[in-house]
Amino acid sequence: MNEQQLSAEEIAEFLNEVFPGAMENFKIEEVVPMRARIRMPFSTRQLRPGGTISGPSLMALADTGLWVALLAMIGRVPLSVTSHLDIDFLRKPAPADVIAHTTLHKLGKRLAVGDVLMYSDGESMPCARASVTYAIPSSHKP
Amino acid sequence: MNEQQLSAEEIAEFLNEVFPGAMENFKIEEVVPMRARIRMPFSTRQLRPGGTISGPSLMALADTGLWVALLAMIGRVPLSVTSHLDIDFLRKPAPADVIAHTTLHKLGKRLAVGDVLMYSDGESMPCARASVTYAIPSSHKP
Amino acid sequence: MNEQQLSAEEIAEFLNEVFPGAMENFKIEEVVPMRARIRMPFSTRQLRPGGTISGPSLMALADTGLWVALLAMIGRVPLSVTSHLDIDFLRKPAPADVIAHTTLHKLGKRLAVGDVLMYSDGESMPCARASVTYAIPSSHKP
Amino acid sequence: MNEQQLSAEEIAEFLNEVFPGAMENFKIEEVVPMRARIRMPFSTRQLRPGGTISGPSLMALADTGLWVALLAMIGRVPLSVTSHLDIDFLRKPAPADVIAHTTLHKLGKRLAVGDVLMYSDGESMPCARASVTYAIPSSHKP
Repeated sequence: MNEQQLSAEEIAEFLNEVFPGAMENFKIEEVVPMRARIRMPFSTRQLRPGGTISGPSLMALADTGLWVALLAMIGRVPLSVTSHLDIDFLRKPAPADVIAHTTLHKLGKRLAVGDVLMYSDGESMPCARASVTYAIPSSHKP
Repeated sequence: MNEQQLSAEEIAEFLNEVFPGAMENFKIEEVVPMRARIRMPFSTRQLRPGGTISGPSLMALADTGLWVALLAMIGRVPLSVTSHLDIDFLRKPAPADVIAHTTLHKLGKRLAVGDVLMYSDGESMPCARASVTYAIPSSHKP
Repeated sequence: MNEQQLSAEEIAEFLNEVFPGAMENFKIEEVVPMRARIRMPFSTRQLRPGGTISGPSLMALADTGLWVALLAMIGRVPLSVTSHLDIDFLRKPAPADVIAHTTLHKLGKRLAVGDVLMYSDGESMPCARASVTYAIPSSHKP
Repeated sequence: MNEQQLSAEEIAEFLNEVFPGAMENFKIEEVVPMRARIRMPFSTRQLRPGGTISGPSLMALADTGLWVALLAMIGRVPLSVTSHLDIDFLRKPAPADVIAHTTLHKLGKRLAVGDVLMYSDGESMPCARASVTYAIPSSHKP
């Protein structure tokens, strides 16, 4: 089961097909088995007063970033849904791109769980960490 | 310290002042000491394919809803920031308004913590639950 | 499905049967559909230096307390396992009994999710809050 | 601030002094700046029916493991307390030692936050993941 099913390009194409707009704020940079790296380009639309990137933008990045790592492994299964997300905001993000490094720790028949570390571009310490659980539809045959 | 400082109207006014747009998707329905009720009117913009209200919309509702309960107690302090949020998505929300019931369980000098239960309008079981922690700036004098 | 299957006495009996010792630190005070109240009697064994009840004791109380509420609804199903637990420690607990008020927010075929508020006996504000997710074995017929 | 203050031996000595018994179930294997590796030797006392290591044992391992990484950085400060812990149980642990790899992602004046990955000895995928937040006493001078 731990064999990669889809490339970065195939995932982006699939997401745009089943969920138009899902990737408009994100760029898939790399996908390897159980891991993905996603970039959220800096945009003034995400800014809060004080120049901070908004919390909901980082939550969406974490959520989508781990979904990409999951789709890479399970293939064209559109119906996986987030069942749990928790996030710690660690530092005020810089007014810059944010890069999410996502790792799947479990890929079961019914649940997938992983971690996300998010870095302002060029920084060595993360601005946020998250973990996310997905419920995988039971019709999925791994 | 457990005396309410601001009414629903004062909070909405303050938020629009320091953070334009923060309340454009939300309506404060009731504020009492340590609790608030916030409505997110149904909007087709929040929809995912399949008619579901998006996860990030519910996360923003939880985050803002508890912030309203906090501001009611600490007054015009703009700089409180979310340090942790966790959310469980329990049921597919109906294509309807979502109502958040927020409760502060701790209001300390440095941290505030509370729970949020979110219901599709008219439903008796929540579509999501969340808990949120805020870091309160140390310049705040309670 | 939302009908109670077991009484407090039947749950205690069942737990002692399948999991000897599980309830030796806890007393089931009340069980109603989707809710339970559990008491952890004060014991010097749980103390940390400074007289605080240890974090792991409160985590075990949250975990077991919501399990009781779950068993009340699904009956003699021993194999449900905790898949996620998160806890906020809000105040130093008093050297006293701790009472957990547990509420199930979701009781699905595969997952159950609920909240726990824990109070030092006699206090009006909680010393800790938790939420817990259980994975229910698929052999279970609701 | 990111310089290590204490070695593994000094941390074990300090913990036994201020908190007798804290380390009786744990062995500090390695400490480097912002990271620590802790072993929980297998013990039949931690077993649940079915041979599983109990959830509270893993929670205590996560909590203590990250505390060790924190003490290495801040020195002999006994009063840091856990304010939040969340844990995902990913796989049934083997009847074997469990090794926790802990990483601090933030070491602020008031809060420290980190991740913990726990592995049954010899396994390549974790049996549990956790994140933990500590409140650092304000008397601490970093």
